[in-house]
Amino acid sequence: MYFHVQRLINDIEQDEPDPAAANALQEGLGGQFGEMRTMMQYLFQSINFRGPTAKPYRDLIQGIGTEEISHVELIGTTISRLLDGSPRYQGKKTDPVDAPGAGGATPLSIALDTGNIHHYLVGAQGALPVDAVGNPWSGAYVYNSGNLVLDLLYNLMLESTGRLQKCRMYEMTQNKTARSTIAYLIVRDQAHENAYAKALETLGVNWSATLPIPKTNAESFPEVARLLDLGLQSKQYSFDLTAESEAGRIFQGLSPSQDGTDLDASEQAPEGAPAPISRERYEEFAPGADKELIALIAATAAMEMADIDATFGRLP
Amino acid sequence: MYFHVQRLINDIEQDEPDPAAANALQEGLGGQFGEMRTMMQYLFQSINFRGPTAKPYRDLIQGIGTEEISHVELIGTTISRLLDGSPRYQGKKTDPVDAPGAGGATPLSIALDTGNIHHYLVGAQGALPVDAVGNPWSGAYVYNSGNLVLDLLYNLMLESTGRLQKCRMYEMTQNKTARSTIAYLIVRDQAHENAYAKALETLGVNWSATLPIPKTNAESFPEVARLLDLGLQSKQYSFDLTAESEAGRIFQGLSPSQDGTDLDASEQAPEGAPAPISRERYEEFAPGADKELIALIAATAAMEMADIDATFGRLP
Amino acid sequence: MYFHVQRLINDIEQDEPDPAAANALQEGLGGQFGEMRTMMQYLFQSINFRGPTAKPYRDLIQGIGTEEISHVELIGTTISRLLDGSPRYQGKKTDPVDAPGAGGATPLSIALDTGNIHHYLVGAQGALPVDAVGNPWSGAYVYNSGNLVLDLLYNLMLESTGRLQKCRMYEMTQNKTARSTIAYLIVRDQAHENAYAKALETLGVNWSATLPIPKTNAESFPEVARLLDLGLQSKQYSFDLTAESEAGRIFQGLSPSQDGTDLDASEQAPEGAPAPISRERYEEFAPGADKELIALIAATAAMEMADIDATFGRLP
Amino acid sequence: MYFHVQRLINDIEQDEPDPAAANALQEGLGGQFGEMRTMMQYLFQSINFRGPTAKPYRDLIQGIGTEEISHVELIGTTISRLLDGSPRYQGKKTDPVDAPGAGGATPLSIALDTGNIHHYLVGAQGALPVDAVGNPWSGAYVYNSGNLVLDLLYNLMLESTGRLQKCRMYEMTQNKTARSTIAYLIVRDQAHENAYAKALETLGVNWSATLPIPKTNAESFPEVARLLDLGLQSKQYSFDLTAESEAGRIFQGLSPSQDGTDLDASEQAPEGAPAPISRERYEEFAPGADKELIALIAATAAMEMADIDATFGRLP
Amino acid sequence: MYFHVQRLINDIEQDEPDPAAANALQEGLGGQFGEMRTMMQYLFQSINFRGPTAKPYRDLIQGIGTEEISHVELIGTTISRLLDGSPRYQGKKTDPVDAPGAGGATPLSIALDTGNIHHYLVGAQGALPVDAVGNPWSGAYVYNSGNLVLDLLYNLMLESTGRLQKCRMYEMTQNKTARSTIAYLIVRDQAHENAYAKALETLGVNWSATLPIPKTNAESFPEVARLLDLGLQSKQYSFDLTAESEAGRIFQGLSPSQDGTDLDASEQAPEGAPAPISRERYEEFAPGADKELIALIAATAAMEMADIDATFGRLP
Amino acid sequence: MYFHVQRLINDIEQDEPDPAAANALQEGLGGQFGEMRTMMQYLFQSINFRGPTAKPYRDLIQGIGTEEISHVELIGTTISRLLDGSPRYQGKKTDPVDAPGAGGATPLSIALDTGNIHHYLVGAQGALPVDAVGNPWSGAYVYNSGNLVLDLLYNLMLESTGRLQKCRMYEMTQNKTARSTIAYLIVRDQAHENAYAKALETLGVNWSATLPIPKTNAESFPEVARLLDLGLQSKQYSFDLTAESEAGRIFQGLSPSQDGTDLDASEQAPEGAPAPISRERYEEFAPGADKELIALIAATAAMEMADIDATFGRLP
Repeated sequence: MYFHVQRLINDIEQDEPDPAAANALQEGLGGQFGEMRTMMQYLFQSINFRGPTAKPYRDLIQGIGTEEISHVELIGTTISRLLDGSPRYQGKKTDPVDAPGAGGATPLSIALDTGNIHHYLVGAQGALPVDAVGNPWSGAYVYNSGNLVLDLLYNLMLESTGRLQKCRMYEMTQNKTARSTIAYLIVRDQAHENAYAKALETLGVNWSATLPIPKTNAESFPEVARLLDLGLQSKQYSFDLTAESEAGRIFQGLSPSQDGTDLDASEQAPEGAPAPISRERYEEFAPGADKELIALIAATAAMEMADIDATFGRLP
Repeated sequence: MYFHVQRLINDIEQDEPDPAAANALQEGLGGQFGEMRTMMQYLFQSINFRGPTAKPYRDLIQGIGTEEISHVELIGTTISRLLDGSPRYQGKKTDPVDAPGAGGATPLSIALDTGNIHHYLVGAQGALPVDAVGNPWSGAYVYNSGNLVLDLLYNLMLESTGRLQKCRMYEMTQNKTARSTIAYLIVRDQAHENAYAKALETLGVNWSATLPIPKTNAESFPEVARLLDLGLQSKQYSFDLTAESEAGRIFQGLSPSQDGTDLDASEQAPEGAPAPISRERYEEFAPGADKELIALIAATAAMEMADIDATFGRLP
Repeated sequence: MYFHVQRLINDIEQDEPDPAAANALQEGLGGQFGEMRTMMQYLFQSINFRGPTAKPYRDLIQGIGTEEISHVELIGTTISRLLDGSPRYQGKKTDPVDAPGAGGATPLSIALDTGNIHHYLVGAQGALPVDAVGNPWSGAYVYNSGNLVLDLLYNLMLESTGRLQKCRMYEMTQNKTARSTIAYLIVRDQAHENAYAKALETLGVNWSATLPIPKTNAESFPEVARLLDLGLQSKQYSFDLTAESEAGRIFQGLSPSQDGTDLDASEQAPEGAPAPISRERYEEFAPGADKELIALIAATAAMEMADIDATFGRLP
Repeated sequence: MYFHVQRLINDIEQDEPDPAAANALQEGLGGQFGEMRTMMQYLFQSINFRGPTAKPYRDLIQGIGTEEISHVELIGTTISRLLDGSPRYQGKKTDPVDAPGAGGATPLSIALDTGNIHHYLVGAQGALPVDAVGNPWSGAYVYNSGNLVLDLLYNLMLESTGRLQKCRMYEMTQNKTARSTIAYLIVRDQAHENAYAKALETLGVNWSATLPIPKTNAESFPEVARLLDLGLQSKQYSFDLTAESEAGRIFQGLSPSQDGTDLDASEQAPEGAPAPISRERYEEFAPGADKELIALIAATAAMEMADIDATFGRLP
Repeated sequence: MYFHVQRLINDIEQDEPDPAAANALQEGLGGQFGEMRTMMQYLFQSINFRGPTAKPYRDLIQGIGTEEISHVELIGTTISRLLDGSPRYQGKKTDPVDAPGAGGATPLSIALDTGNIHHYLVGAQGALPVDAVGNPWSGAYVYNSGNLVLDLLYNLMLESTGRLQKCRMYEMTQNKTARSTIAYLIVRDQAHENAYAKALETLGVNWSATLPIPKTNAESFPEVARLLDLGLQSKQYSFDLTAESEAGRIFQGLSPSQDGTDLDASEQAPEGAPAPISRERYEEFAPGADKELIALIAATAAMEMADIDATFGRLP
Repeated sequence: MYFHVQRLINDIEQDEPDPAAANALQEGLGGQFGEMRTMMQYLFQSINFRGPTAKPYRDLIQGIGTEEISHVELIGTTISRLLDGSPRYQGKKTDPVDAPGAGGATPLSIALDTGNIHHYLVGAQGALPVDAVGNPWSGAYVYNSGNLVLDLLYNLMLESTGRLQKCRMYEMTQNKTARSTIAYLIVRDQAHENAYAKALETLGVNWSATLPIPKTNAESFPEVARLLDLGLQSKQYSFDLTAESEAGRIFQGLSPSQDGTDLDASEQAPEGAPAPISRERYEEFAPGADKELIALIAATAAMEMADIDATFGRLP
């Protein structure tokens, strides 16, 4: 059984809207190696798990799976904010891009030429359950062979691929809203890599210097480096309300990433960050355009606007 | 942010394995109007919600969305149990098969004429993220127009269709494991129908005698009648750990189903039921077949077998 | 602009329900070479047609495309009738089931081993826009290269493949309801083959003895032979209300099938057959189960039941 | 059975080619809430309809379904014209876009960055059965539960969503060819909304001020306002050649949109507009490039070029 | 550049037709972990390979990829033979059917309750590029991250999953035609597992006792045991005509499966087996039914029938 | 059984990277009428072929199918090179485009606005098994009716459509890397058109002046003209290592394209061209970024860099 708190698992930095970055992030949400996939894969592996003696492995997968639901919430909210209006709406134009790889564009920004018209036409400037080329998420992505070694091996490869793609994404944009979430997910993917690598270690595999994958570069991203300094790549939360998880029997000892840290499964959950609701956008033909409807809603709901102004700025 | 407890949202009755019933239930899990769909649709609607003044509507959707994750867990577990071995394995229809290639059918030959051969060939006798004809779940199912009235109208139609299909499913099988979960979901679908119908009432729609849809029959199913007597169709839990949900501002007053009950949003969550892990099935080429691996796992995990025996019966 | 008359393009014989035959016919409706495909392909080719001097070719395609809409209606209605109740319901194979959950099978348990469980679970014993293995019809099927020769060549191949599949379908069932529609479509497919073959003749191709494809066997089916004797394989209707079609400039002269007939495009449309509405099925949780609703409908609608009884038999 | 006249259901204004607008309109043709979907959904609901006493509901759905075939023809032709050559071919460059929301770009034009290369590579500058991000139309879109209330509720939601998307589309482009068709479909979607809302009124639902959805804005679009003044949102044609439709028993009385008009089902069909065939485009490797082939066609077809010149301008 | 010889990579044993076994084998051909997938994945990884210094890894992948094309040919041919006629046709279960529509079942009625009706309706009793539930093979299956470690890890997991599924398949049928191919592919999958495991060993991973996956059972299948005795799990052929492959630099030394064998890459290819063409089936509306066509073919082709008789038995 | 040589079937010219051209070429690789489709279609037709007397037809299809594997390799390599870095990386900007059809842009270059972000985000600047709008290749494309005439007719249409699309592609770009491969495939598609047309001639069809399709324009492309002068459109290689192919019984006599050439099936294979491995790209998070890994690889592989420098230029 699942519960919710009205907080985001990590804070999202404020910056300009950026539809192209939003579209790149869709890969991390609805792509074959994105958060919806990890979430669903681990949920199915937990549900179908057989073998009571192997409970620590089930609990490890279950705990990471629960975290992935919060990641879906985080990256979805990030995309929604990146789409909330556009530079054009706000009367701003980004500076021209000067030189490849130099101060201007990030190295892979060439990939960002396109967006997804559905963000404006089918959705209302919000996240969609699709990847960065618009393919809907598919249940065919979910892998659950029923063989423990294979499932763990797949999960390790899945987290590493997710991390690889997020490193590429990071290089595609300089938008701070996008990068704050990308950096957080790069580090959490490494924590999950560590978890599955460690589980395979208990079953006999020795990774020597192979991990993490990709091995380099991410720590050269300042937002990532800050989180690595906090040791976030070596923590795994249980998200378990009644402390029955036995994942800590596996997630302990030296990190398979060989960064000198010890794995730590002692915390239930991170502190999280506030999760305010965005302002309506009238041009989307949402109900807000209808004054009578707003009055009806106002009659049943009353809420302080102060913290919204604090987060999104005051409406002119 | 999401949390988990190691309990099922409702108890699953014990009965014989029944692969055909398992396959029918796949529609309720991975079908276009199944639990994965409601779960994802409400999560996306919550994430993309705009308009702080309409928070009670967001909280209503968020709370139901959180419940749907537990429904995915419940129906997935039910399917997994219905597939856990087959009548043939348990000596019900034919003699037990000892060795592959020896007299009688081969051990897994049952898979050749069941609903979905993937249950035995791709999965390990567990639930799959597909519908009852094997179509993978698709992100294209998710509806989130950004217009509050439309989203609520769609959600009402979605819950009613889910309920309609589950009534048909109920009539397809007499298996108690299947029916205990089907009956529970029929009643909860009606609770969600009531929630969205009430929300539309606050926006001006008067349903008169139209609800619930389908209007009749379900109460003639004994398992459903028992739950209706408990008033489960008129309760909505918040699943909100810090009690910030304002869904109760909407989910109150007379039920739109006109069954004389009042809507009640005062409880955080139902009590739930134990969620034991199933025994391994050696014929699936899962790790259990490997004695060394079991020894390794045993060294890291120790668990009382008693409650497992209590749930699944003692292994001969 | 399109118009409709409340008649079927051909009569459907009465016979027992037959879910397996219904499922085979789905290929002819929603399959890659079925009627939805021909309909959509010819509509798109007509809409996108360029070159006013080639109008006779456009009109030929447009006329056949219009006929295909009526074929969708015909084969869909046939499937719906084949699914209308089941042998079990009608007391043919087992005793009638009175109450759900009582002795014998549950009312809809037939759905668990028929061709497509969706016929009973998602649809209400009616046709679906899918093929015989449940794949939804896809827009990717439509071919429209913009090159006239290629489009005609594809259309010829498409009609021939449709005819080939229908010949196989004919051999799969002896149900008269199914066979009456299959036989009609075999002959009409040949008429369309002739149309596209003749159009290619005007552009230089000589088919000698290659047509029709498949060349043999169909005339050994009695229902087909009867229609060939009427010359239906050599007629093409315009379905054009204002007689502006120039298709007759192409569809004339000796048939490319070399059966000694002349092609004839002089008729606007066939006479057709009555298209009565089927009775409600209460077990499907359709509105009919709700007496109040029926009373409401009765207040706005009044209709003679006589011809319905004539078609479907009197309700006991 | 269906018939055709060589006229479009509404006139298409002439303007420059505009591939980006063409691509946005693809959502209205092949998208999940586009005209192919409404057409197919209503055709299947008509074919599978059960219950002779409910014939007026069937006839209402059938009549709207027939109209949707003409809408497919209209929007497909519009897309084909918008793709017929490009600004670049015609040696024109559109003016630079100055300010957001101002005289220059329309508010949502930012969404138009992308097109669909298939318009030029797979098709020959013509419409495709896909949505605005290139997903092929899918039979999985069609909803037909067999429960009358649910089917009507879904249809209402479907028309409203279609109208919502077309309002967004309107804001994305100023091209007159695109807007003339968008405006017409916005108003006809409202007529269909009214039809399904009225049908639900006869079954007990009271919409009060909820309709139409979205409630506002569309009347501020001049092309839409002109059609609303003509009352097109309150008319429903039968498209029934033999006047057997009983849809008028439902489509009567005050409009559920509460715009003070009465619903009127007295007309068979609108007058329509001429539907000339576009000129060939030689760069597409269409048959026109081949002189011998043109000569062959000319020998069988002869047509006055005058009205083509009148519509498309004289070739230089 | 690729070449072909008219031989199968392994011999297929003769046995009765068995459509259900044929359908299970489709998973091994067109499933997510079947031979089309391995073939395409390795071809794309070879094509896109970067880094000349890593050529031995590229050559290893390329060589296995070339072998997979022959596996597609082998398993496809096996399926085709398992579908070649049916028990009913050959008088095994019921009397032969003489004329369509006459006593007993119609000739193709067997198709109505077999695994995939498309085998008889869309194909002509031959293999299809789909999996065991009829899903078409998808390009979305192919994994090629560009990171060598990840690609090798995925390939290892892919081969192991393929082997796991084939072990399940083996247990589903006793048909010798099916089992001879299944057993061969189980052993070759292990050879490929060894190849990718060894490649990862060169990059630092130590597998200890983890391999092969699944570890047990397969050697208890007699057909598999025979091939293991021949050491086929420890050989990798180059299939390289000009002996430029450097795969042998990796595929050498002790097998990672720890079965005491040494890896051996010294052979170019196995000897293979004859690949005769099957007899025509007249009931399929193939050209053979047309006597004139057969005469035409006979005029251009002449071939000894002796070896065909030897393989398939003499036609009565 | 299949073999490989480390050579490309045709040489690829060097030019600047060009991601937009790469994306257009994806249609020729993974599109519905691209090389993966022809390859798979002919492989399945060969595998499922029935009728030993028709062996020459089987051998013709088999030989072309084998060639198509090399075409997949060729066009995949071309795409990979076009994506290898970008103009921006190399500090170059292409000249502005002046006038349609003139020295600047090619006539259809307007279609090239978009690319595929997956080339950089999911792949590592390499080819993907998708079409030009990102749809994954689907097994549903493969056509194999089992009727020889129909299969040949489809194959003819398939090759002609492929050629038509490649002519459009040619007009979209002036990049020499892209055009060298496009031109080669245009001519080889014509050779395959000739093969299937000739096979249909032996079965009675007379094409007169209809072929090739599209008839004109391609010879006006200089790269195509050069290959036509070499007669490449009238040669078909066997790719058969043991010279058992009987395809030459069909592929002989006057070309159906009526260009005055004779068809010639006497050669086993073309000479081909070297196939060097591209340099690593460090920004892709490929293994090259990891110095330890490079050292490990270097220890097992040693290769001359000279010819790489010759092909790709020396790294600065």
